[in-house]
Amino acid sequence: MHAFVRSLITEWRRLDLPVEGETIVVAVSGGADSVSLLLALHDLKEREKLNHRIVAAHLNHHLRGSDSDADERFVKLLTQDLGVELALGGLELVSGGNLEQNARVKRYRFLAETAERVKAFAVATGHTINDQAETFLMNLIRGSGPDGLAAMRSTRTLNPHAADPLPTLLVRPLLTWAKRGDTEQYCKDRGIEYRYDTMNEDTAFRRVRIRKVLLPLLEDFNPKIVEVLANTANLIQSLPAVDDSENRFAEQDELILGEVRGLDSAELKAAIRTWLHARRGTRRQLGLKHITAVERLILSEKSGRVAEVPGGRVVKADGRLRYEENKVEK
Amino acid sequence: MHAFVRSLITEWRRLDLPVEGETIVVAVSGGADSVSLLLALHDLKEREKLNHRIVAAHLNHHLRGSDSDADERFVKLLTQDLGVELALGGLELVSGGNLEQNARVKRYRFLAETAERVKAFAVATGHTINDQAETFLMNLIRGSGPDGLAAMRSTRTLNPHAADPLPTLLVRPLLTWAKRGDTEQYCKDRGIEYRYDTMNEDTAFRRVRIRKVLLPLLEDFNPKIVEVLANTANLIQSLPAVDDSENRFAEQDELILGEVRGLDSAELKAAIRTWLHARRGTRRQLGLKHITAVERLILSEKSGRVAEVPGGRVVKADGRLRYEENKVEK
Repeated sequence: MHAFVRSLITEWRRLDLPVEGETIVVAVSGGADSVSLLLALHDLKEREKLNHRIVAAHLNHHLRGSDSDADERFVKLLTQDLGVELALGGLELVSGGNLEQNARVKRYRFLAETAERVKAFAVATGHTINDQAETFLMNLIRGSGPDGLAAMRSTRTLNPHAADPLPTLLVRPLLTWAKRGDTEQYCKDRGIEYRYDTMNEDTAFRRVRIRKVLLPLLEDFNPKIVEVLANTANLIQSLPAVDDSENRFAEQDELILGEVRGLDSAELKAAIRTWLHARRGTRRQLGLKHITAVERLILSEKSGRVAEVPGGRVVKADGRLRYEENKVEK
Repeated sequence: MHAFVRSLITEWRRLDLPVEGETIVVAVSGGADSVSLLLALHDLKEREKLNHRIVAAHLNHHLRGSDSDADERFVKLLTQDLGVELALGGLELVSGGNLEQNARVKRYRFLAETAERVKAFAVATGHTINDQAETFLMNLIRGSGPDGLAAMRSTRTLNPHAADPLPTLLVRPLLTWAKRGDTEQYCKDRGIEYRYDTMNEDTAFRRVRIRKVLLPLLEDFNPKIVEVLANTANLIQSLPAVDDSENRFAEQDELILGEVRGLDSAELKAAIRTWLHARRGTRRQLGLKHITAVERLILSEKSGRVAEVPGGRVVKADGRLRYEENKVEK
């Protein structure tokens, strides 16, 4: 197994993501980062380390004329060769406003819709440690404070405001360990071409200027600056006071009814899932029906005081929910 | 009153520093930052807003040959003109090692010794918002994590390991609001020359490269970058999880004996002072004898269960200390 693939499955397990029976959408632009992610996930499927249905998703944003169409053709051919399903989307060219920001919002909307359509538990993107360092610097310069310096998380909810089904996860399994050079090298080792984003040269874009001008200067100060910035973001993520409205429930032993009743339906489902995941130590076997049962426990006074979940039960008492594990007979 | 002086006394009050009856050492290199601080503190004394004995302290580190001697002469003349006491120190030129770091350590040692000698409650330095931004970037590049990004605090203990007397404070009353341009302008408005540090041009020093190369590039991204970085450091300081071994006691309603008994004598005194300061809402009137009485309460089982302090008392019960305020008759 290639070291890149081994690192990916190790990270997958560290993130406690499911390894079988689900559908996963992989965002593929055609660049080395997303192509390497698709290749490695596909390799893990062939090796039966990950038994998921893989659906690649590509959005043609038509921002770069014939280059955009060539990207789309490239992704079509690649997925055909691999025998991977492909969901394609197209955007009309919209001028004005923040081009980067608008394209980003539309890309995530397309990915969320695709995930809902194919009933995927998650969308995976190829963000690398370099993207993390750039995001950190963007947010630092913008002055967005500790929350901004936490930068990107390896997993988050993709569509927190969708009421149904369970919120889809956004998973970034390369974020903490893969450098851009690693993704390019893995593609080369597999003998697979990748597309080169000509917008990477346009320093009118703030992120490109950070990549092409600021980071090289910072590397003069510290050659390991990309790792340092990504690691700093990680450390800030781990501070309990840094806002992470979803994950704060992971820290709580008990859910306080008065607190979670103020959440909207999707936030409440996400809170229950996060809390149960942390209490049970795993995401496995937890389905929508369990989440819904706990939700009823929270919202209704008539719903009794216990909801069964795989491996144990959730008990309501004194305005709180606590999790009780099944006792195992020796 | 000049706006610079008004800003200084406002910050002085915000930091809840004493306004009379103490001695304060002001570190004066001869540069605009420290000269402006000395001038403004002296002005506040003349206006009877701050009734402290002021002692200027200058260390000739002999790093810049005749320039260093000219700095010393300048500070001598300035303090003579103002009628301010001056403590002078000299260092032999030491080569090798980290020149900047060594000079810094020796400067702080000189300031701490001077403060002890004149029984000062604090040493004040002229660090500005620009210094804070540079420290933030130095620590970011070095990879020192959230604690490093908290950068400099407006007040801290200068000699935490000195056993006696009460630890001296290090106070940076310009840190959160004065830009380098403000200190230069105030000196000009007062018609006072200041010395120019030729080492500010030597980009062999990391801090100078940050000031001269990195910060101007970051200003292209955001013209307010100095304020943004200093504000980010402030926000990180305010996160409860960021290490601030002294100030964490400010957050505690009660001191837990089992916890503070593990501190060494100076740390314990600092903890008591910080805790009492936060409970009482002021540093005023609190003397070494009160701190020592509380220390005995903590360390000895035979010391009774109450220590009187100005405005109230500290009561020992159930392995904890709590503060009780005197009741005021209506």
